[in-house]
Amino acid sequence: MTVVTRDLHVETQGNNHVVDITEAVQAAVAQSGLHHGIVTVFVPHSTCGVSTIEYEPGCVKDLQRLVEEWIPSHRDYAHNLRWGDGNGHSHLRATLLGPSLTVPFVDGRLTLGTWQQIILVDFDIRPRRRRVVLQMLGE
Amino acid sequence: MTVVTRDLHVETQGNNHVVDITEAVQAAVAQSGLHHGIVTVFVPHSTCGVSTIEYEPGCVKDLQRLVEEWIPSHRDYAHNLRWGDGNGHSHLRATLLGPSLTVPFVDGRLTLGTWQQIILVDFDIRPRRRRVVLQMLGE
Amino acid sequence: MTVVTRDLHVETQGNNHVVDITEAVQAAVAQSGLHHGIVTVFVPHSTCGVSTIEYEPGCVKDLQRLVEEWIPSHRDYAHNLRWGDGNGHSHLRATLLGPSLTVPFVDGRLTLGTWQQIILVDFDIRPRRRRVVLQMLGE
Repeated sequence: MTVVTRDLHVETQGNNHVVDITEAVQAAVAQSGLHHGIVTVFVPHSTCGVSTIEYEPGCVKDLQRLVEEWIPSHRDYAHNLRWGDGNGHSHLRATLLGPSLTVPFVDGRLTLGTWQQIILVDFDIRPRRRRVVLQMLGE
Repeated sequence: MTVVTRDLHVETQGNNHVVDITEAVQAAVAQSGLHHGIVTVFVPHSTCGVSTIEYEPGCVKDLQRLVEEWIPSHRDYAHNLRWGDGNGHSHLRATLLGPSLTVPFVDGRLTLGTWQQIILVDFDIRPRRRRVVLQMLGE
Repeated sequence: MTVVTRDLHVETQGNNHVVDITEAVQAAVAQSGLHHGIVTVFVPHSTCGVSTIEYEPGCVKDLQRLVEEWIPSHRDYAHNLRWGDGNGHSHLRATLLGPSLTVPFVDGRLTLGTWQQIILVDFDIRPRRRRVVLQMLGE
């Protein structure tokens, strides 16, 4: 059993930008030389989240609309009042989507479904360069 | 340290069907021969999610009602307009519940609470046969 | 590769009490003697959840308000009608936040962001003593 850690960097536009990072995660698994195990996809940021989706423009648009209706960007947030930030909504969205995703791989391939992609969603209110920690455990 | 991967198949009714898969996950852990480690429960589908709940009819009904109020099945979704599907809401529900759950086990037993069961929720709009990847890492 | 399991106990006030458990998780990783790997933070309870947040009073207050608006404590729940409990809302909140979080560590340090802390949220309606399972896998 071995542990392999890789950093991925992703340029985002913020504001609910949904980025498909499936290929990069698959490449990290392939390059690890491991055959079977798990990859943990972790964003070390408090205004980003990770999950999976059928990555096509319709689902992406629906997700962005839902998130804005659920946790509106334009209302009062205690975080904003305290710090003069405008991203109180971004923090809530990130906490509820979650910063971590664990995906098994078998024979060097992620066990994702055909219509299922790994996404990073950047909820912050400006373009950012994001770090994603990819850590493979396996044999 | 060893990796053991097993597939579980679950017949669902779709439409927020909540299935208790605790026994099947516990059986896979027991059969792996591993004593201590984690099991990753992963659904390779874009209209299913996994989590835990106190699996009793009241909580299940409350969850189904909440999900329908939060992300209604009957409204316009860009996914539906684009593909002629009727399951745009299913995709959003799955992305937000998440496809992956990691549970530690000790002495061959899942560390679940007494009133805590592992559930698969099928958000799709018709009965489906679902695959669940169970991957144990441990010693 | 080794597996190390530790229990953490947390005193909470219930009612959306948000507890920062970052230091305790970091201490468990340090004491494990492992250099690289993952820690799974798992709550064996059906009315608690775990995630990350920028742990400052504003974000905490915003999270508590959102959760109360989204899943109100004062409405009818089938769980309450069935069992005479008053915590039907607590169960739903826990299922949707999720009981499990996986965080990579490198050189004995959690790969958290500077403004990102690990939180346990207790959704139950009274003070509780909670158990958190911390399990490290790594080398």
